[in-house]
Amino acid sequence: MTRTTTGTVTLVGGGPGAWDLITLRGARALADADVILADHLGPGEEIDRILAEVGAPEKEREIIDVAKLPYGRQVAQEETNRLLVEHARAGKTVVRLKGGDPYVFGRGFEELQHCAAAGVECHSVPGVTSAVSVPAAAGVPVTHRGVVHSFTVVSGHVAPGDERSLVDWSALARVGGTIVVIMGVRHARAIAAALVAAGLDPATPAIAIQEGTLSGQVSVRATVATLADEMERAEIASPAVYVIGEVAGLG
Amino acid sequence: MTRTTTGTVTLVGGGPGAWDLITLRGARALADADVILADHLGPGEEIDRILAEVGAPEKEREIIDVAKLPYGRQVAQEETNRLLVEHARAGKTVVRLKGGDPYVFGRGFEELQHCAAAGVECHSVPGVTSAVSVPAAAGVPVTHRGVVHSFTVVSGHVAPGDERSLVDWSALARVGGTIVVIMGVRHARAIAAALVAAGLDPATPAIAIQEGTLSGQVSVRATVATLADEMERAEIASPAVYVIGEVAGLG
Repeated sequence: MTRTTTGTVTLVGGGPGAWDLITLRGARALADADVILADHLGPGEEIDRILAEVGAPEKEREIIDVAKLPYGRQVAQEETNRLLVEHARAGKTVVRLKGGDPYVFGRGFEELQHCAAAGVECHSVPGVTSAVSVPAAAGVPVTHRGVVHSFTVVSGHVAPGDERSLVDWSALARVGGTIVVIMGVRHARAIAAALVAAGLDPATPAIAIQEGTLSGQVSVRATVATLADEMERAEIASPAVYVIGEVAGLG
Repeated sequence: MTRTTTGTVTLVGGGPGAWDLITLRGARALADADVILADHLGPGEEIDRILAEVGAPEKEREIIDVAKLPYGRQVAQEETNRLLVEHARAGKTVVRLKGGDPYVFGRGFEELQHCAAAGVECHSVPGVTSAVSVPAAAGVPVTHRGVVHSFTVVSGHVAPGDERSLVDWSALARVGGTIVVIMGVRHARAIAAALVAAGLDPATPAIAIQEGTLSGQVSVRATVATLADEMERAEIASPAVYVIGEVAGLG
């Protein structure tokens, strides 16, 4: 028995949240889709607005909210993977709409690998990453000539010192560039402390931004030493990004 | 005497090169513009295609190729700054179309500061950064779960050890994440050597990509130890990006 796969999967980076920060290519992929798997990051709740903007033709598009998949987080990812392959095998043009860029802590490459292993054609469309665009929305450039020649984007999901950590925070403190932390609200205090302990000047400017690029955007300025306190005071919650470095003090 | 400024300046991130990797917001800004200052990075040569895709109305749009401004590089930047302000003061809606994201080594914040100092309203529209999307176009994710929790984007314009360097390459070698170097073709050998000298495993996978996302895209895989030789052999030239880290060996 041979199975003919006629469908495809396209991973689309939807950008940081504002609906019009998706790319033209991403919007076109949504217009062409039969099935869209979306979550609450990126512009998942404003797909209609994107389709209208690019004059997408009327057609039936099934939208599956994968943020509402049951069970735990890992099971939800497996279920997302399963749905991508199932719909593609049914001959559908499938889009997986993701927040930010698919390959910046988005598990996009896992989804691509899963499709490839199942013999399903899978492409990716890059997106505007929150790591750069959310600071920008608060007036902070991640680089500025004469100030920094590098920036590091780091997941704060695992605390410094945790045995699962893959980041040498002590080395990071000495690189000399901007540090952008995403998914790091819970461990902000431990992260700031680790950087200062490694020699980062406690007076280094910092800024935390919640819901960047959206109407509910809130930001708070601090130093690396006061960041965790200021974030608590401002009740900064996920999804949030914080920036530590001289650029956070510009403008 | 009071001067009334009626024009505005919008810095638009045009993405890595492919015309359809600009955002909807960026395309809309181009459609609304009276004057567009573009260069050869990003989609500057395919503005008409972008305008057609979003159904932009017919209107007169002056396109100024700032890559062709005379004199040296620094003078060209000053001339760009001057033109932005001059046209805005003349009441024009001005767009500065840039490659990638305006705030990732794009001098965008300088242009914004210049406008602000001149009393000209200036906004920025983020773009898809080449640092993430060019590796992706070659099949390389800058992050992958279980492999890396961080990535550093670094300008290779100044060599390690140069007194103007703002990067501690030795610390960078120990962070444990993906390293993405842009503007680093000329100093590839010195950069790779500095990283290995600081303890990075010489067998660490690497990939260099020229003209990523465009029809002329070329890439070459190597290790950090062989990167400079392989780049020379493949005649990799600017604009190019290279990635050093385990992710360069995936897929």
